[in-house]
Amino acid sequence: MHEIHVGKDLREHNREIARENREKLKGRGIVALNLMSAPGAGKTSLLVSTIPHLKDKYNLGVIEGDLQTSRDAERIKELGIDVYQIQTGGVCHLDASMVHSAMHELDLAAIDLLFIENVGNLVCPAEFDLGEDGRVMLLSITEGDDKPKKYPLMFAESRLLILNKIDLLNHVDFDISRAKREALDINPRLEILELSCRTGDGIDEWISWIDRFYSESGGA
Amino acid sequence: MHEIHVGKDLREHNREIARENREKLKGRGIVALNLMSAPGAGKTSLLVSTIPHLKDKYNLGVIEGDLQTSRDAERIKELGIDVYQIQTGGVCHLDASMVHSAMHELDLAAIDLLFIENVGNLVCPAEFDLGEDGRVMLLSITEGDDKPKKYPLMFAESRLLILNKIDLLNHVDFDISRAKREALDINPRLEILELSCRTGDGIDEWISWIDRFYSESGGA
Repeated sequence: MHEIHVGKDLREHNREIARENREKLKGRGIVALNLMSAPGAGKTSLLVSTIPHLKDKYNLGVIEGDLQTSRDAERIKELGIDVYQIQTGGVCHLDASMVHSAMHELDLAAIDLLFIENVGNLVCPAEFDLGEDGRVMLLSITEGDDKPKKYPLMFAESRLLILNKIDLLNHVDFDISRAKREALDINPRLEILELSCRTGDGIDEWISWIDRFYSESGGA
Repeated sequence: MHEIHVGKDLREHNREIARENREKLKGRGIVALNLMSAPGAGKTSLLVSTIPHLKDKYNLGVIEGDLQTSRDAERIKELGIDVYQIQTGGVCHLDASMVHSAMHELDLAAIDLLFIENVGNLVCPAEFDLGEDGRVMLLSITEGDDKPKKYPLMFAESRLLILNKIDLLNHVDFDISRAKREALDINPRLEILELSCRTGDGIDEWISWIDRFYSESGGA
């Protein structure tokens, strides 16, 4: 999205609501991660694989963003997690006020780690601060190793890049070192993990990353 | 994208320019296809695989839409095709005026089949008429069989759905009949092809589809 479509007032309005969200989350000791990627890169599958490793350590909450349907939320709910589904009705990203509304519906007193799964889109979600503590993006290796320079903003704005579906590496043309190099050119501080929900490779490193991020972000 | 972000005037403006584009293309006997998909679903690779089969039959032109970089255009140019690169500078879709400008730069008298490769995004491109004759969308099977109901507009607006990267079918969980059924629920007239640029499966059917579409659309 672009200045022509989203005027300054709307952006400033989003920043204000994001600030409110952030204060409210901080005030309650909640650490929030915003998960972003193109459609089908595996955000929900990652959450489904991650939650069993975390649910004894943290009180988890999930906000699911989708254009339509509550399928992703249903997959999370089956794991016994408090989940709120935002259906954006066609809007291609979450914004701070959508998350603000969702926060009113969740039992925040019972949450200390909140995942916000954004709408599948490599562009617009990166432009909207939700009040989160950090951004994690997934790039499925089936999408190609040329994506960092083609969609730079999301790489620039993320703390962690997860190269996902690494089990398919022998079946696609994806140069991991090229993708990493180009991502680091855009964002030298970006951390990068390789992961496969199918085989479980990289899940332990991802859980360790979450634990470290949680304590660095002032989680209880 | 949504009414809140794109006001009626802007949409109406886009429709007017799209009408102009359509008249200009029709007047010159050019048939135009708008290729849309999520990032990394294989639009450029499809063009690269397609062009050698078409270049003796048609005078081809390509308009490439990307946020940044001209990598896709370079891949097309290597095949000896007239190509124009639109760098949207962050805008997550092509609009009619971008295509209008590109049409000024191409030698339209020397083109009879024009491919417009949209920005990689399953949402916003579907909302912007470019003046094309038809829309073709790609869904890589690595993105998951749940995408039609989650991103319905693009499925509703397309003439043809290409299920791409079909060579990976044994390596991912993708129920082809489910994906087709859900896509047809949204758009009963949607045509569907299965394709792999790696193995060449489905390329012949895709070329036949183009030939038929070209003559049905009044191509010379």
